[in-house]
Amino acid sequence: MKKFLNDPNDFVSESLSGFAAAHSDIVELSTAPLVVRRRVAKRRGVAVVSGGGSGHEPLHVGYVGTGMLDAACPGAVFTSPTPGQIAAAVKQVARADGVVLVVKNYAGDVKCFELARDMLEVPAELVLVNDDVAMVGQQHVTDRRGVAGTVLVERIVGAAAERGLSLPECKRMGDRANQSTSTMGVALTNCSVPGAASTFEIGADEVELGVGLHGEPGQSRIKSTNAREVARLLVASIAADLKLAAGETVLLMTNGLGGTPLGELYLLHAMALAELARLGVDVRRTLVGNFATALESAGASVTIMRLDDELLSLWDSPVHTTALRW
Amino acid sequence: MKKFLNDPNDFVSESLSGFAAAHSDIVELSTAPLVVRRRVAKRRGVAVVSGGGSGHEPLHVGYVGTGMLDAACPGAVFTSPTPGQIAAAVKQVARADGVVLVVKNYAGDVKCFELARDMLEVPAELVLVNDDVAMVGQQHVTDRRGVAGTVLVERIVGAAAERGLSLPECKRMGDRANQSTSTMGVALTNCSVPGAASTFEIGADEVELGVGLHGEPGQSRIKSTNAREVARLLVASIAADLKLAAGETVLLMTNGLGGTPLGELYLLHAMALAELARLGVDVRRTLVGNFATALESAGASVTIMRLDDELLSLWDSPVHTTALRW
Repeated sequence: MKKFLNDPNDFVSESLSGFAAAHSDIVELSTAPLVVRRRVAKRRGVAVVSGGGSGHEPLHVGYVGTGMLDAACPGAVFTSPTPGQIAAAVKQVARADGVVLVVKNYAGDVKCFELARDMLEVPAELVLVNDDVAMVGQQHVTDRRGVAGTVLVERIVGAAAERGLSLPECKRMGDRANQSTSTMGVALTNCSVPGAASTFEIGADEVELGVGLHGEPGQSRIKSTNAREVARLLVASIAADLKLAAGETVLLMTNGLGGTPLGELYLLHAMALAELARLGVDVRRTLVGNFATALESAGASVTIMRLDDELLSLWDSPVHTTALRW
Repeated sequence: MKKFLNDPNDFVSESLSGFAAAHSDIVELSTAPLVVRRRVAKRRGVAVVSGGGSGHEPLHVGYVGTGMLDAACPGAVFTSPTPGQIAAAVKQVARADGVVLVVKNYAGDVKCFELARDMLEVPAELVLVNDDVAMVGQQHVTDRRGVAGTVLVERIVGAAAERGLSLPECKRMGDRANQSTSTMGVALTNCSVPGAASTFEIGADEVELGVGLHGEPGQSRIKSTNAREVARLLVASIAADLKLAAGETVLLMTNGLGGTPLGELYLLHAMALAELARLGVDVRRTLVGNFATALESAGASVTIMRLDDELLSLWDSPVHTTALRW
């Protein structure tokens, strides 16, 4: 797989140096260990820190800024950051009010964030994100992965912290955002880690349903890329998982996996909107674009968050990051 | 090539319906003919209208909004909008103060916009964008193509119009922005129009230098994807074209062609910044992301605009579109 790359070992650090240089109005980069933090630190309140393997950009570093993360620690591609790196990030931005650690539910990430928590001198709460509905019924529900819904959970926790909510309140809002959110993904092509080969191939006439954020095999394959049918399958899985009923209000995110052009994402978004309209669900807020990616995978995911007044109010509050702002 | 698609003939209209639904706070869509215009029209002053073939999203529809375009007319994929469609767009947004038509320098686009101008009842000026340095020396300079620099020209003309400048002044600023801007592109993979096959293939170990925005062959091929070397070649071509000297101030845009992940774009951006630092050029503003694309092509372009106080002041003025905002 051809990539813009020098030495694969330098991929993350070189990419982050470009990121930090491009957005020096919003972020600062520490290089040993790698931590991206806000250029202007929050004066008070709970800090919000996330992180995970690189290769999902703009997740997580693109969400550092007002109304979202205080810091993010990027690991190697598809590899958890180290406990020491996470603890260093927290030390740079957290104070006595404590910190919420937003963690995608993968064994390696959870373990490293838990080890980091034990190293901290400030109160800390973990918010685990496990929005992926793909593997429901195939594994224990506790094994659900964290995928694109992580963006929404980071936003809600970040907004709560910015508003001055206490550590238990921020934790509660994070858990509620996660419980209100489900995602289902679909891939047309796979990706490969810089310097390595692709882990599996998807046939020229096949679509991989229920794919995650790491080019791992999904739930099933179908012989179609008809966007209307794909959207129907994705929305049906999510609606069943959230037990969505007619008349409910939701946020809809149509997320690209990195290699799919914006025109196709908007088309898929239109199909998802039509499917939700058919179910009588009221879509109040939308996001369309590349928000949580799997390197160069062509593909997309649909995420739905059930909204209530509290979540909507936090969602609408000001946010100013490199990847999300209003 | 697999795509999120229903009937290929419906690709543009279905995609635009998703776009308009996702961004109903900023834009409105007319469907016969297809025109995207601001939801809240400008009260007075010169209108700015652009358009071109679809498949370059967010160009042009993503740049409709305050401080940029008043309307955009999207053609079929890689096909110019019709003169009637362009005239309809102008009629929806322009008044006695007149309109600037920003046109990428392709024969079909130029002809259709010129025919449209003859149909208008308001004063109109064309600003042709021909920022692509790839074909210099291979064809007449008047045949230079308009590529990613179009985003910068649309921004400058839009800012000038928003500030209340007259039609001749807006035209002058647009021409100056174009003359100050050069772009060079590079592709790792090609793209295909929905429903059609790819026009040419790029070998697994090859990089196509000087590629345009339509999957057309470029200037030359090299056997490398070393990002440092690619950035050096791109910046050298642009610096020669602009006759950039040490101490000059510029804007640097590292633009993705649609299929390249953000992490690679930031890495390429870091390499371009290092090359400009080596040349003693002062980079004052930056953009990194997918701003002018060629469907799912993996690849990128580097664009440099020489800045002066007037261009910088217009660049920094408020902009609120779906794809660019501050």
